[in-house]
Amino acid sequence: MRLSQGFWQTYKETPAEAEIPSHQLMLRAGLIHKSAAGIYNYLPLGYRVVRKVEQIVREEMDKAGCLELLMTVVTPGDLWQESGRWDVMGGEMLKFKDKADRDLCISPTNEEAITDIFRKTIKSYKQLPVTLYQINTKFRDEIRPRFGLMRGREFTMKDAYSFHMDKACLDKVYDDLFKAYCNVFDRLGFEYSAVEADAGNMGSSDSKTHEFQVIANTGEDEIIYCPETGYAANSEKAQTKRANVDFDFNDQELKEVETKGKSTIADVCDFLGKPQSQSIKSLVYTAIQGEEEFEVLVLLVGDDELNEVKLKNHLGVDHITPATDSKLLEYGLVKGYIGPLDIKKEIMILFDEAIDPKAYYTVGAQKEDYHLTGYQVAKEFEEATFVDLRLAKEGDLTIEGSKPVLVKRGIEVGHIFQLGDKYTKAMGVTVLGNDGKTQTPLMGCYGLGITRVVAAAIEQCHDDKGIIWPKEIAPYQVYFATIAKSEEFKAQADDVYKKLTDAGFEVIYDDRKAGAGFKFKDADLLGLPVRVVMGERDFKESGEFEVVDRKTGDKQKVKIDGLVEKIKELLA
Amino acid sequence: MRLSQGFWQTYKETPAEAEIPSHQLMLRAGLIHKSAAGIYNYLPLGYRVVRKVEQIVREEMDKAGCLELLMTVVTPGDLWQESGRWDVMGGEMLKFKDKADRDLCISPTNEEAITDIFRKTIKSYKQLPVTLYQINTKFRDEIRPRFGLMRGREFTMKDAYSFHMDKACLDKVYDDLFKAYCNVFDRLGFEYSAVEADAGNMGSSDSKTHEFQVIANTGEDEIIYCPETGYAANSEKAQTKRANVDFDFNDQELKEVETKGKSTIADVCDFLGKPQSQSIKSLVYTAIQGEEEFEVLVLLVGDDELNEVKLKNHLGVDHITPATDSKLLEYGLVKGYIGPLDIKKEIMILFDEAIDPKAYYTVGAQKEDYHLTGYQVAKEFEEATFVDLRLAKEGDLTIEGSKPVLVKRGIEVGHIFQLGDKYTKAMGVTVLGNDGKTQTPLMGCYGLGITRVVAAAIEQCHDDKGIIWPKEIAPYQVYFATIAKSEEFKAQADDVYKKLTDAGFEVIYDDRKAGAGFKFKDADLLGLPVRVVMGERDFKESGEFEVVDRKTGDKQKVKIDGLVEKIKELLA
Repeated sequence: MRLSQGFWQTYKETPAEAEIPSHQLMLRAGLIHKSAAGIYNYLPLGYRVVRKVEQIVREEMDKAGCLELLMTVVTPGDLWQESGRWDVMGGEMLKFKDKADRDLCISPTNEEAITDIFRKTIKSYKQLPVTLYQINTKFRDEIRPRFGLMRGREFTMKDAYSFHMDKACLDKVYDDLFKAYCNVFDRLGFEYSAVEADAGNMGSSDSKTHEFQVIANTGEDEIIYCPETGYAANSEKAQTKRANVDFDFNDQELKEVETKGKSTIADVCDFLGKPQSQSIKSLVYTAIQGEEEFEVLVLLVGDDELNEVKLKNHLGVDHITPATDSKLLEYGLVKGYIGPLDIKKEIMILFDEAIDPKAYYTVGAQKEDYHLTGYQVAKEFEEATFVDLRLAKEGDLTIEGSKPVLVKRGIEVGHIFQLGDKYTKAMGVTVLGNDGKTQTPLMGCYGLGITRVVAAAIEQCHDDKGIIWPKEIAPYQVYFATIAKSEEFKAQADDVYKKLTDAGFEVIYDDRKAGAGFKFKDADLLGLPVRVVMGERDFKESGEFEVVDRKTGDKQKVKIDGLVEKIKELLA
Repeated sequence: MRLSQGFWQTYKETPAEAEIPSHQLMLRAGLIHKSAAGIYNYLPLGYRVVRKVEQIVREEMDKAGCLELLMTVVTPGDLWQESGRWDVMGGEMLKFKDKADRDLCISPTNEEAITDIFRKTIKSYKQLPVTLYQINTKFRDEIRPRFGLMRGREFTMKDAYSFHMDKACLDKVYDDLFKAYCNVFDRLGFEYSAVEADAGNMGSSDSKTHEFQVIANTGEDEIIYCPETGYAANSEKAQTKRANVDFDFNDQELKEVETKGKSTIADVCDFLGKPQSQSIKSLVYTAIQGEEEFEVLVLLVGDDELNEVKLKNHLGVDHITPATDSKLLEYGLVKGYIGPLDIKKEIMILFDEAIDPKAYYTVGAQKEDYHLTGYQVAKEFEEATFVDLRLAKEGDLTIEGSKPVLVKRGIEVGHIFQLGDKYTKAMGVTVLGNDGKTQTPLMGCYGLGITRVVAAAIEQCHDDKGIIWPKEIAPYQVYFATIAKSEEFKAQADDVYKKLTDAGFEVIYDDRKAGAGFKFKDADLLGLPVRVVMGERDFKESGEFEVVDRKTGDKQKVKIDGLVEKIKELLA
């Protein structure tokens, strides 16, 4: 494409509202245009990236045997009422009524719609399994949209849904889709991690679920992974064990010590001259299940943190929340000095598995300005409950193999999930089984954020000059700039442009009337993999082009005969 | 695709709500699935057709130098307020508020959005002309959606917008896009007509506009065209002249005749034994322009009809509507017997140009149960106003060349339009001109209904057995059915399937356990161009396949060696 005939404008200023690199760079490089808060138009160069990502995803889904369809953007409310999500989804679902006063919404997700299509089409086990997918616009009415495409309101997703007669079949297709996702992210050239995630209350206890995380410093999620064993999980799901256990096993008496004004683990341990791992942290939560409520006291090694998801899952409740001051009072628990002893009213007590029942710890004394030292669980409780509740952290060891884990930050670009019969059951779907009896089919769902992938690519790879696109999804492959004055030279440059496009490269030809510095800044900002410069003086003197690798910054002089080969090499 | 692994279900019953063939056949052939009134999911086979149409359109737009982008489905209300269309578009625009109480709508069209993008990107004449397009979902909240994809609420459109410094440039790009549209419809294999349309109050008087109409009996629009000269226009715009003028020029006196109870042209002429062309039809309209209103008396040859668009354009008003009875009374006009004489109050009188001022006609006498014969305009009016107001009809002659015109019915699948400065002016867009002065750029817009094209293809070509797809957009090219019992034969059929796909054909392999009749019915309903049948007995006896051309119904026996060639020939 000749830039003189293009539709492209770059910007020097970083818009104040743009907080993360992908948002800043996409606006500055003229790839997107803000329509409203969290709603972006994709300008021609930006849209080429989106379409390339779509195409890679489409090819890998097709290869995995999935069938593409297109569901409606606007879906009727009655489907959501049938599944019970019309009210639950309230928050982010953009609902409205049409002229005929019917409830409608813009789909934030399509489990209901696909289940409706499925039940009207499939009647027999002979037609299963089947996996259907679409690439379509979705909308989530975030109250505070931010981070550009990363957490926009309108976005493009690939969502797939599989249907099965049994768990074995679901497992097989799940694994196939897992591989298809790996193929997608491999082709995109991403550094990514497929991490075990928490199924929450979406699936049953044997439901598998994985997140695909693109590694980036600006990622919102924490990933625990082990380079040696390949173990990877998001921090909510990760199960590891403590590495350094410098616990104190020397026999000692329970003793009350004054710790005036020392209400944090750090302050108390500092004051007592002990490592934090020789203290116990006490947290009180209220668990809520329907109309019911109860409190739980959670005890962790002093330098560990609670994983709230693990606690919630262990309790099997809808929500958990830190207990209010008045609740603490009810139990006679003294804020800052809470401990497992002298509790006024019966309370559920859970010890984290990392606490050794034989070791001695400092705990709160249940009394303002006092702690107890020499606390041993085994002495105080005949049958204490030990549960894995701690948040995994860097330096922990894997459960199997005891290898150290690391922590990275990631951007969730895909999520695959075994839904089980959640939707088919709620919507009364049955299929005739092999045995002539009707059966409720199982489902899997497989999401991949197309526009999020575009932003994640930039978060993972950019520098202070601009974007560094993965080769497979760069809007074009080659930025060909001429610095020309004479008409004769321009004609020569036109010939080179033709030669490059004839060789099959996607080329942006910067034929604008502008200086070298201006053009190079634009080229770096846009971040195409290869820059080829044809300067009038250089070319006339030596017949050489300057070829620059955007990623490494390597510059080489190449003559016309070797130009195509050199570009191929850099794009390989 | 093996049907045993597909997601496809056909239906025998024609849904009661489906009134036209495309709607009936798409539902019966399992191509679409109704989500809500006027909102359809595209099932895998149906979506393949949509994607093929999109791809043809995309290729032709790219070839014409247009740049693809993607605008948002949800657009902010303030843009529409800026152009002044927020209230005007009220009817079909689905408006709502988001959580932050901002006005939003689902785009029914994107002139405002593209103009906003343009003004933030382009500053100089050097960057023009440019044509941008998108293929995207749109929504129009029709109160009575019907006819399936033909007049649905959610639909896919290609909409393009061009920007120019002057009319000459707009004309050139308009012509280029006109050609691109012809290329699209040629490739689709459509019988279509590019017809002149009425610019209405969208453009200025020199604005060109054309509709692309697919010829089909079920079309909603009437097209006037001349096979000899190539003239074509929709009936609202068409300018023709009457062919047979058997007017009465014999000198005669104005004479009142009793025509008791004969209040229609047909009855009066019958009663008087004269052809209707020797009478004059009188119509009274109220014209409304802002707060102003006035009446107009329109006179046409008795067997002609009024073209309301022509009348409205001639008057240059917002609306016209037949005058109410009380208005008629005010002017002393007697319903059923209205004529141009003896009007109580001054009124604008317009004669259609087809009326010969020297001919004698029968007209209403302005008196219950009476008409006048021998009425001659020249005798009664010194300066009568003659305007082209009649609706063109079959048998008329072209203005230039006097060749007879025909009438066809058409489905509007595309509409191209010179918008002029309507939006750029309203939204305050300026661009720096060659002379250093700012200037308001001109726009063109170019719509093409992707999903409507799919329905139109079926309306144009189907029979009582099902759809007959144009080759370029059939979901697959070949329907390969085996009627097999033995495992050995199945393996042979698998080989043939592989041979056909290896040859590059898109093949549906009907490997379902079902009889020949069942499979052939499905094949005819789905309407792929070529059906290849491999029957176990036939194949074993003679090694022959049956190859059927869906369009002509021609059946041929072909041996394996000639199979690929034969299919190629049928698809050519």
